[in-house]
Amino acid sequence: MDDFPPTAKSRVKRLHQRAHYDRETIYRILDAGFVCHVGYGIDDHPYVTATSYWRDGDSIYWHGSSASRMLRTLKGGVPVCVNVSLIDGLVLARSGFHSSINYRSVMLFGKATALGDDQEKLRALEAFSERITPGRWDELRPPTAQELKATMVLVMPIEEAVAKERDGPPGDDEEDYTLDVWAGELPFHLTAGKPVPDPRLKPGIAEPAYLQDYELEGQPKGS
Amino acid sequence: MDDFPPTAKSRVKRLHQRAHYDRETIYRILDAGFVCHVGYGIDDHPYVTATSYWRDGDSIYWHGSSASRMLRTLKGGVPVCVNVSLIDGLVLARSGFHSSINYRSVMLFGKATALGDDQEKLRALEAFSERITPGRWDELRPPTAQELKATMVLVMPIEEAVAKERDGPPGDDEEDYTLDVWAGELPFHLTAGKPVPDPRLKPGIAEPAYLQDYELEGQPKGS
Repeated sequence: MDDFPPTAKSRVKRLHQRAHYDRETIYRILDAGFVCHVGYGIDDHPYVTATSYWRDGDSIYWHGSSASRMLRTLKGGVPVCVNVSLIDGLVLARSGFHSSINYRSVMLFGKATALGDDQEKLRALEAFSERITPGRWDELRPPTAQELKATMVLVMPIEEAVAKERDGPPGDDEEDYTLDVWAGELPFHLTAGKPVPDPRLKPGIAEPAYLQDYELEGQPKGS
Repeated sequence: MDDFPPTAKSRVKRLHQRAHYDRETIYRILDAGFVCHVGYGIDDHPYVTATSYWRDGDSIYWHGSSASRMLRTLKGGVPVCVNVSLIDGLVLARSGFHSSINYRSVMLFGKATALGDDQEKLRALEAFSERITPGRWDELRPPTAQELKATMVLVMPIEEAVAKERDGPPGDDEEDYTLDVWAGELPFHLTAGKPVPDPRLKPGIAEPAYLQDYELEGQPKGS
């Protein structure tokens, strides 16, 4: 797939060998995560808000209450930075200096707009639900007109983007490999536990299949 | 412990019952995480960078290359927002509208400065190392003067802060409890896998005890 052209904002200057501008890498990481950190400014002060997101085609989406200060600010078309970072483990080198973290991350820069049409909003919310819990949307009662009105969905075209990744063992100074220090990686995984039924769950309702062996955050290549 | 006084930036307006301004809650969450998202502006454009951090007393710290654009920008004393968000699970309600995520999060606002003194930097880096891998610092070869020079450590006093948390089962509309839909929570955990030795590990070096049954990200209350 094609590349996103590096820009003044997206070009990685340090450790540039870890940077990737191709759509395939960027979308692979975006599709493995589900929580992003959205950065924006209000009155010259930076804010960072964590929120769930999903990708559809060449856009990413996030949503929330129509009364949310974050969403009301962003729908005005202010510049926004979206960061998705998946932490894959500790890199334990023989020196503190070369110790590190294995990760997959994406930074997007752009401007968001709010979906205005109820049908568009419904389709977007269904896509989000199906991303998180495939098959559940049709089990839920449909959103009411009032709920749709109270929900804002933002969309941001992916145009300025960069991925940064690190994996594999530590890269120590050559002379440090003789030291008597354990070195290697400690991999991390985000795992789902056993579903916990609502105390008010109606008797006789089976646990849905999509919650069994649930895996949300994609694991890194090679693991 | 005492509270951080809510400010124009830190006061939560929506779902304010989820907000906490007390030092105990804020520090408990900060001490459970190890990756934060730092928000700042360059030329009126927002940036969000994920980085590891640690708390010591009433300050948080993060570090990196002295050449890092993020660190060089921040040490100039520009306004910064630090977000720590721990994702504890999915909240599966009987409607999409009330479906949610259980989480623990903290937002800090302030300005950072760079530690200037080598002894201060060493003490801070040791505290970071001990936070992540208790006992490892003394096994590593000490940092060289050149490495210390190439490493910047930022410190930010915690003065403007808010925590936000959600836990427990969904809160559905009263009439939806009769629906034939499974509802409850799907808890998430960040877990460490088996340590992976460096392919170049010197033979005969035992896996350190601090990597066994490793738990980094504190689990939520009640789990």
